[in-house]
Amino acid sequence: LSVEIYDQFTQVRQLSEEICQPLATEDYVVQPDVDVSPPKWHLAHTTWFFEQIVLSAYEKNFRPYDPDYLFLFNSYYESFGKRAARAKRGFLSRPNVEQIYTYRKAINERMATLLSREPLPKEARALIELGLQHEQQHQELLGMDIKYILSCTFGETNYPSNIKPSVALANTMIEFAGGLTTIGATDPTTFSYDNESGAHQVYLQPFALARRCVTNGEYRAFIEDGGYQDFRHWLSDGWQQVQTQKWQAPLYWEKRDNEWCEFSVADWQPLDPHQPVVHVSYHEAQAFAKWSAARLATEFEWEYAAKTQASTDGAFLEDKVWQPEHCAAQKNDQLAAMFGNVWEWTQSAYLPYPRFRAAADALQEYNSKFMVNQMVLRGGCCATPRKHIRASYRNFFYPHQRWVFSGIRLARDL
Amino acid sequence: LSVEIYDQFTQVRQLSEEICQPLATEDYVVQPDVDVSPPKWHLAHTTWFFEQIVLSAYEKNFRPYDPDYLFLFNSYYESFGKRAARAKRGFLSRPNVEQIYTYRKAINERMATLLSREPLPKEARALIELGLQHEQQHQELLGMDIKYILSCTFGETNYPSNIKPSVALANTMIEFAGGLTTIGATDPTTFSYDNESGAHQVYLQPFALARRCVTNGEYRAFIEDGGYQDFRHWLSDGWQQVQTQKWQAPLYWEKRDNEWCEFSVADWQPLDPHQPVVHVSYHEAQAFAKWSAARLATEFEWEYAAKTQASTDGAFLEDKVWQPEHCAAQKNDQLAAMFGNVWEWTQSAYLPYPRFRAAADALQEYNSKFMVNQMVLRGGCCATPRKHIRASYRNFFYPHQRWVFSGIRLARDL
Amino acid sequence: LSVEIYDQFTQVRQLSEEICQPLATEDYVVQPDVDVSPPKWHLAHTTWFFEQIVLSAYEKNFRPYDPDYLFLFNSYYESFGKRAARAKRGFLSRPNVEQIYTYRKAINERMATLLSREPLPKEARALIELGLQHEQQHQELLGMDIKYILSCTFGETNYPSNIKPSVALANTMIEFAGGLTTIGATDPTTFSYDNESGAHQVYLQPFALARRCVTNGEYRAFIEDGGYQDFRHWLSDGWQQVQTQKWQAPLYWEKRDNEWCEFSVADWQPLDPHQPVVHVSYHEAQAFAKWSAARLATEFEWEYAAKTQASTDGAFLEDKVWQPEHCAAQKNDQLAAMFGNVWEWTQSAYLPYPRFRAAADALQEYNSKFMVNQMVLRGGCCATPRKHIRASYRNFFYPHQRWVFSGIRLARDL
Amino acid sequence: LSVEIYDQFTQVRQLSEEICQPLATEDYVVQPDVDVSPPKWHLAHTTWFFEQIVLSAYEKNFRPYDPDYLFLFNSYYESFGKRAARAKRGFLSRPNVEQIYTYRKAINERMATLLSREPLPKEARALIELGLQHEQQHQELLGMDIKYILSCTFGETNYPSNIKPSVALANTMIEFAGGLTTIGATDPTTFSYDNESGAHQVYLQPFALARRCVTNGEYRAFIEDGGYQDFRHWLSDGWQQVQTQKWQAPLYWEKRDNEWCEFSVADWQPLDPHQPVVHVSYHEAQAFAKWSAARLATEFEWEYAAKTQASTDGAFLEDKVWQPEHCAAQKNDQLAAMFGNVWEWTQSAYLPYPRFRAAADALQEYNSKFMVNQMVLRGGCCATPRKHIRASYRNFFYPHQRWVFSGIRLARDL
Repeated sequence: LSVEIYDQFTQVRQLSEEICQPLATEDYVVQPDVDVSPPKWHLAHTTWFFEQIVLSAYEKNFRPYDPDYLFLFNSYYESFGKRAARAKRGFLSRPNVEQIYTYRKAINERMATLLSREPLPKEARALIELGLQHEQQHQELLGMDIKYILSCTFGETNYPSNIKPSVALANTMIEFAGGLTTIGATDPTTFSYDNESGAHQVYLQPFALARRCVTNGEYRAFIEDGGYQDFRHWLSDGWQQVQTQKWQAPLYWEKRDNEWCEFSVADWQPLDPHQPVVHVSYHEAQAFAKWSAARLATEFEWEYAAKTQASTDGAFLEDKVWQPEHCAAQKNDQLAAMFGNVWEWTQSAYLPYPRFRAAADALQEYNSKFMVNQMVLRGGCCATPRKHIRASYRNFFYPHQRWVFSGIRLARDL
Repeated sequence: LSVEIYDQFTQVRQLSEEICQPLATEDYVVQPDVDVSPPKWHLAHTTWFFEQIVLSAYEKNFRPYDPDYLFLFNSYYESFGKRAARAKRGFLSRPNVEQIYTYRKAINERMATLLSREPLPKEARALIELGLQHEQQHQELLGMDIKYILSCTFGETNYPSNIKPSVALANTMIEFAGGLTTIGATDPTTFSYDNESGAHQVYLQPFALARRCVTNGEYRAFIEDGGYQDFRHWLSDGWQQVQTQKWQAPLYWEKRDNEWCEFSVADWQPLDPHQPVVHVSYHEAQAFAKWSAARLATEFEWEYAAKTQASTDGAFLEDKVWQPEHCAAQKNDQLAAMFGNVWEWTQSAYLPYPRFRAAADALQEYNSKFMVNQMVLRGGCCATPRKHIRASYRNFFYPHQRWVFSGIRLARDL
Repeated sequence: LSVEIYDQFTQVRQLSEEICQPLATEDYVVQPDVDVSPPKWHLAHTTWFFEQIVLSAYEKNFRPYDPDYLFLFNSYYESFGKRAARAKRGFLSRPNVEQIYTYRKAINERMATLLSREPLPKEARALIELGLQHEQQHQELLGMDIKYILSCTFGETNYPSNIKPSVALANTMIEFAGGLTTIGATDPTTFSYDNESGAHQVYLQPFALARRCVTNGEYRAFIEDGGYQDFRHWLSDGWQQVQTQKWQAPLYWEKRDNEWCEFSVADWQPLDPHQPVVHVSYHEAQAFAKWSAARLATEFEWEYAAKTQASTDGAFLEDKVWQPEHCAAQKNDQLAAMFGNVWEWTQSAYLPYPRFRAAADALQEYNSKFMVNQMVLRGGCCATPRKHIRASYRNFFYPHQRWVFSGIRLARDL
Repeated sequence: LSVEIYDQFTQVRQLSEEICQPLATEDYVVQPDVDVSPPKWHLAHTTWFFEQIVLSAYEKNFRPYDPDYLFLFNSYYESFGKRAARAKRGFLSRPNVEQIYTYRKAINERMATLLSREPLPKEARALIELGLQHEQQHQELLGMDIKYILSCTFGETNYPSNIKPSVALANTMIEFAGGLTTIGATDPTTFSYDNESGAHQVYLQPFALARRCVTNGEYRAFIEDGGYQDFRHWLSDGWQQVQTQKWQAPLYWEKRDNEWCEFSVADWQPLDPHQPVVHVSYHEAQAFAKWSAARLATEFEWEYAAKTQASTDGAFLEDKVWQPEHCAAQKNDQLAAMFGNVWEWTQSAYLPYPRFRAAADALQEYNSKFMVNQMVLRGGCCATPRKHIRASYRNFFYPHQRWVFSGIRLARDL
């Protein structure tokens, strides 16, 4: 077993560094928005997690690598004491990139030593698995944050642009009868977070779900129909965002020479109307749905559909395309790309499931303290590691956030 | 029928003015917080509603009473064009109190003329009913806002203090088996809002609900146990509120000479430990529940319980005590004061019900555009008109707001 | 002597109440801008000054009228302890208008008793004189604040509009040779503030000063020439104000039906091009001067000119026109309306004179703590009591403030 | 002549790069405060100045190096069109450090070609000289900004710490008789800015000036006497800064283990009581002076004293100590270190001199648009190039800024 964990550990840790490989040293440092963290911070924080959560508990004669690091690279855990202000992560030029790679190497070696110790207690193995899941989440955040950082610069990036254009599948609806269904993680042999545990019955009304997500072309029609100027499509809080933030289009859309362009992590390119729309907030997803005389799915409808009729996948992190793939073909009239491509906003608020029990100790802060004011997204995206996602997985963001690879799948009452 | 509506109209309109009767002219004018509106604004806005929604559609040769008023006394309806900034309602000394009472009188007379016309179309009657429900909501807001305004002043107010102290009922839990139940307004013969319509099946897990709401004494124990200093009880957004707003206790609690005092609309008085705690935010309700190893009910659990086992009522607006009554006696082990006393925070986000259809035209803005970022409260309070409340009624506020007469009833999984 | 002081006291105190006589009760209460205070606050604060500064020191068996008032009606004196937040003066509906008039009456009577005591110590007489000068300053502030408050309302006010229109005098320049001159208050027998004391030598270069202030018509030409769109006229901080505040014209100018209108305290009226421009900030005065290839005078040039060649006066508070008068006639080619009409922005920063000594004790806070970041204005305005002004008087405001009755007189190098 | 300019050009350009030599790549990128610019920005902006101001006017067939750079590296010149937001300089990871050094090299070569062209017009030579003076100002800013950036990091920097400690000179006062004196730049053969031109007569009262600047030890006594807790020492705006910014000591002072430490660009070290105090705002300088029963000098007093009785110098940029030197010895009772060490706050506001004429065209923005709300500092500091300073040089900052190497020299009336 330990060999297996060791391999997994090595792979995950290596992938984080691979993601950053095309970056210039300067790209690792900046924080152009409070939601964005410098890549070097992610590399350090995921390492801190192993040091603070695993090594400090299971390593013999544990000593901190550097006491300052325990302060600097804590993200939001109040349990571990004071921490550097989130908004100031981009103020710190040091520890610099080289020092952080050295830190990663040192902790990797100490973890390797720990993993070679037989037998590792079950609780330690669980924490290591959590540490790897945690690093996978930050791999996705790295993808989001690097895209944001590079979008602020001028000139080419070193990231590839290797998406294969195609014509989007017709967007028909697939119908579901509803009724009582079980929601939540049910397989005790695979990893799941505390927030998806507590499988329970939910009663669903009949509903229909779109075969694929909304495309750039469809979203552009909403813009051209005056969608951002008509309050009637928007929730009150969303309308306020539109006005104070002067939103006119999704994040990373810019009109150049009177043509809409979109930033991929590689460069700016003319908008591809068949590509799934991405980087929309909940407010925009909701407004688009209302304009379409449709709605978003609840997270329960989504999970039920994903468990019963999902078929091919969209793009994942391992594909390194950093953008959703075109949904051009689909067998048997099933739901296309429920997993990968874009996180799909649901109209469900992020709340505890019945009988929810938060993880113990400091880890109770991992998920449960965010259960207010956020909305659930489902299905993973092109920056999600393939093995990280599952039908019961609940992601959550604030309704105004849009640097996420987030998109829209329409639903309807039947 | 019209006679009945006319009587109702007269009673409701009169009650708004009765509520304000003890005010000094100056009390009608100020806006000491952006959430609070000057009483004269409420008196004018509820009148505007009849002018704008009813008279402009059904009065022959309709002419605005004053074009400025249509601008000044619109609250949040984008459909009716530009409107005075909410935060600046307290900047306007004119139209003054006398002018607004004159405005009320004029519109009342025009409404009386309209109501005497036979037969009034069904749609008109529905809008008038909505206008009355709307005014009842503002009667409650008047209660909240007057309390806030008077709390900022010095010296005595002219409001009575006539609560009857008593010893609080023991706070045992009542158990419910759960299962499939119908949620939402089901009686087509009584008024209901669009947001509670669409009766539908919901599956409930077994749960228990407290017989009465949390008291001041119980809440004080939470404070004395360091509740406001321990992040573990709080959601992340709530903890941020505690720190930035320096919350130490519910709104209107102040320590004087080392003893907790509470402001009622009459004056400051020593805290009564048997009185239900009131003026807590969702964050405080949630933190208190977590500290108590309990939770808040979902709005579905609450509605199910209210429909099956509610018994005596708490205080309502007509009692003119302006604070919750003590729950001292209770027959048959039933739930005390589910209606009246304090709005009870639920852990449900304010979201559309299945098959939700917003009201038509401008009235779609009445409820539906607020369906994000807010939490549901149930049951009405001591400032709610008795006839205004029902088991399916859904109120909603932001999780940080606490000038509402809002309290806490605990729930538990079984 | 005491009789004389008593008469003066009575007259000044009465005049404050006369200024407010046309107000509705509601007008006394509001604070539509942080710089504006509710009229009832001014009436109370000037009374507090006599209670706190004079009575508490010289009255036998002094007892506060109401301890809350000492807190509520302190303006900015740190020496007297904590005080109500300036920005929240409009949050307080009570003490209400009637209570404040009662307070005034009570303190007036106690002051009368004190003044009847013979002989009053010299220090007490000095403080009473200061209290009267202080109240005169607040009479001017009342004029400014009432205008602002009424400009936010709708409909007519009860203030008169009795200005006599005329054609403005030609705006020629009068030349001064400069050289060494004495600046500052020199007559020990008349009242002066600490900030104008310390007469001292200043060397002036030759300069010229405009016979009259800039008119609305001249200022409108600046606007029509794109003055608010061309950064080259503006100081950097001023340009930032223009952009963030979206300034397009002086305060109280509004374009209605494509014609510029101006609010006087009476009502909105079409712009009179011959009227002196008023309610401009230092930034606007400086930009206009630069656009005119001229500059503002230094406070030393102004004072020298005022002492040597001023002739007729402009409007003062006692004229109750509440706006500057037209400068239509002028004998002997002298400077018109150096006193009254509008405060004239100088290009001098408000700084201490050589050998400046602040007044003693709490009164050191009266003037000296503001000696940074503000600019000097000279000459008084249409809201200044005639006896309050003199050639050496230094007024000061921040460069962005414009609810002052402030205008522009051009100067040039020779 | 051109050879001389070429050498000067080469030396100045090289010195900027030398200053940055100890930086890690990451240190070049960050902007931990809105006033601080990333070092790579300074290196690029000073290059932009030569490209935009000199080459674009005098190079044959001028072509921009990169059109984006003209946008990115404009600082505050409205004349050259839109520019990158100052607060977002730290958001840009690219152009990266290597690209900016390449940019410098390319412009240096084009400048070398231009300088080899004979004869260079007089206006071109004047602009080149201005470009070099401009780059020297940015060398000082580099010193200030690098210190701020490194103070935010953890661990050692690569900058030296080679100050020679000593015991401070006794701080006696030197008296000046005053009278009429000439202020401003008078030598037409040496460079001066527009803001110091226009030599003119100023009348000075008798005054005394301290032989040396205030030391850390003296300033610590002010702190220990409760200086930051007593409003009476402070101007009103300063007191507000103290409270909102929670100032307790100069910038870069921290109490560690109950002992005051100070950050030099090298590291944190225990406070040296004999070192001149540095990094105080105008507000702190003024408060300290008031507490000392003294005042700050006017800029005229300072200039007069500097022209008549200055003797030894303090540290300059070329000394690369990055902090003021101790003033331990001084011949003939003269003023020590009037030049170098610390910029000395004066109590003069930064205003135009009589007959001030701003430089032409875009260069009018260089100095004149800042002539409001700022205070004058005199004498240069340890980050100023030796040749850059002179007695008539007027520096200016806002009264709240303190990342400047700014200190205090006391003055008194006689």
